[in-house]
Amino acid sequence: MNKERFEKVLENMKKHNIDQMVITSPESIFYLLGEWIHPGERMLALYVNKKSDAKLFINELFPLKRDLGVDVCVYNDREDPIIYLSEVASEDMVMGIDKDWPSHFLIRLLRQKDLKVEIGSIAVDEARVIKDMNERSLMRESSKVNDKVMGDIVDILKEGMTEIEACNALKDIYKKHGAKGVSFEPLICFGEGAAEPHHSSDDTALKKGDCVIIDIGGIKDNYCSDMTRSFIYGDSSEEYNKIYELVLKANLAGIEAVKPGVYFSDIDKAARNVIENGGYGKYFTHRTGHNIGISVHEYPDVGSANNMVVEEGMIFSIEPGIYMQGRFGVRIEDLVLVTNDGCEVLNKYPKELTALK
Amino acid sequence: MNKERFEKVLENMKKHNIDQMVITSPESIFYLLGEWIHPGERMLALYVNKKSDAKLFINELFPLKRDLGVDVCVYNDREDPIIYLSEVASEDMVMGIDKDWPSHFLIRLLRQKDLKVEIGSIAVDEARVIKDMNERSLMRESSKVNDKVMGDIVDILKEGMTEIEACNALKDIYKKHGAKGVSFEPLICFGEGAAEPHHSSDDTALKKGDCVIIDIGGIKDNYCSDMTRSFIYGDSSEEYNKIYELVLKANLAGIEAVKPGVYFSDIDKAARNVIENGGYGKYFTHRTGHNIGISVHEYPDVGSANNMVVEEGMIFSIEPGIYMQGRFGVRIEDLVLVTNDGCEVLNKYPKELTALK
Repeated sequence: MNKERFEKVLENMKKHNIDQMVITSPESIFYLLGEWIHPGERMLALYVNKKSDAKLFINELFPLKRDLGVDVCVYNDREDPIIYLSEVASEDMVMGIDKDWPSHFLIRLLRQKDLKVEIGSIAVDEARVIKDMNERSLMRESSKVNDKVMGDIVDILKEGMTEIEACNALKDIYKKHGAKGVSFEPLICFGEGAAEPHHSSDDTALKKGDCVIIDIGGIKDNYCSDMTRSFIYGDSSEEYNKIYELVLKANLAGIEAVKPGVYFSDIDKAARNVIENGGYGKYFTHRTGHNIGISVHEYPDVGSANNMVVEEGMIFSIEPGIYMQGRFGVRIEDLVLVTNDGCEVLNKYPKELTALK
Repeated sequence: MNKERFEKVLENMKKHNIDQMVITSPESIFYLLGEWIHPGERMLALYVNKKSDAKLFINELFPLKRDLGVDVCVYNDREDPIIYLSEVASEDMVMGIDKDWPSHFLIRLLRQKDLKVEIGSIAVDEARVIKDMNERSLMRESSKVNDKVMGDIVDILKEGMTEIEACNALKDIYKKHGAKGVSFEPLICFGEGAAEPHHSSDDTALKKGDCVIIDIGGIKDNYCSDMTRSFIYGDSSEEYNKIYELVLKANLAGIEAVKPGVYFSDIDKAARNVIENGGYGKYFTHRTGHNIGISVHEYPDVGSANNMVVEEGMIFSIEPGIYMQGRFGVRIEDLVLVTNDGCEVLNKYPKELTALK
């Protein structure tokens, strides 16, 4: 158990009036215990309470290789771990629940005990949002790899290559540069597909005149990267160029707005204003970004409704985009680390308008 | 909306006293609507009730390309879809919740409305467990591909190759044989690692004398395969041979026990008895199998506590194993389709004791 991180979680629980909680995300358990456990559909839960009690519930199929510094309850497939968990859960205290815990566990827990439940993972997420020095350097290294991978993937794009072929090539490129693999399903989109912000890469083949969006990330030493670059393959149109420059300006305005003390919504606004003033507001259909670390999407979003204050040590994406349905799209994304008076941009891959050939 | 499947779900809801429900698994939504939607962390929910009302809640980031035959409520990132969902949810009726819905949605829904919630996905899962004729033939084809892939991967194993290298090769082999990709992270284990039933493939390199477990599955035309074969690389020991034959006997006994009218627990028992009688009962640490279809793990398990009756059209795995910690493991898994008087084994890849060289 990482004592410093555990203390932060306990403080946050107090702040949110959560007396006890169930932490179930493998990422949060890794954050606290330093051990990756992938339990699949089986219950994995770290119970903690304000008295600093901690107990890990784990199926015997996932044997622990070392002492993690917490009590452990090992169950097997013929037992119901919810019964064991309910035995430590107190009805007199508010119970925090991990936001992503599958509902069937919660519903079954509520059958055992009359608990007042709240979303508890906020207490861990708020700890995770401020990266410690070690995490900052791991995030820098992870983005450094992503810059290199972007260079390599751009180099191998050629006419007739499909989106899926490009995505498949990517996985080996991450490994070559020392990353374990991808942090999310890569989004490599050619032409029309790029006009859908969440297009799944398919058998579309690259052809002259297509726009190209490459939204990729890897995992290096347990920390995620995430960057997007947009290109034109062959000759570009005036409209494309205009939209590209607008998205780039929005990306830079978002980055410029980052410093301790501002609201996340201010950053979203800075980027969104550029696109709205350029007349394309309704084509920027998503939030400006998201925090990132052990998970690729971490709490909180960089969005218009988020009035949380930005603090030193946070790392998030700035990724405005414009999507012209049925035609093309442009998105430019960088990760930024909040410093004491601004931010450090973790991605160095160039972002000037570039035509590939 | 597939009317026949929707009717089956409504019948099952009635049987379980579920008046209304929220279906959120992309697989179940595909099963009913014939459309894959991968919403990531955003809310995707198909609300249905006993009056046959149905409404799909979907983020505008995932534009539908055709009419799905249901009402659709499209929301954006600046809106809270839970509010819209709560407007159709009735406090007078039991509300079924999809088992895997992330708890934060449920907790927020319960803040809006005082609902009596139950695990509702059972109504869809019970429909999905009986495969219709079309699904049966898709499952046969998917397993046929898996047989071929097993042959190819066995052919390329060689001394010094790491588990991860073998897993990476696998993905292209599935594509070569017409599958979209893998249905789960492949488990290719050499030596000691094979003694952990849920070992994650790592940089362990294959060496003479190692046991090899290959537990793999692909997705072809939206339906999953899943098969395990065990081998010895080089010379085998008498103990390995004995354990291999015991596991094979257990696999065959499990298959032999399959027919309409028996309990799932009978099948588990048939396989488990062989291993217990052979003196290795405590080394068979997991259930005997699981159902499979659009998802690789479907409801229900083939386990000792499952007294559900087996019916024609069900497809599940029979996968007994013995794990000698720190030394080696053996698991042999086939998929079976329940026929009117027994079962059809979907996997044809040989399973006699084989030494690779």
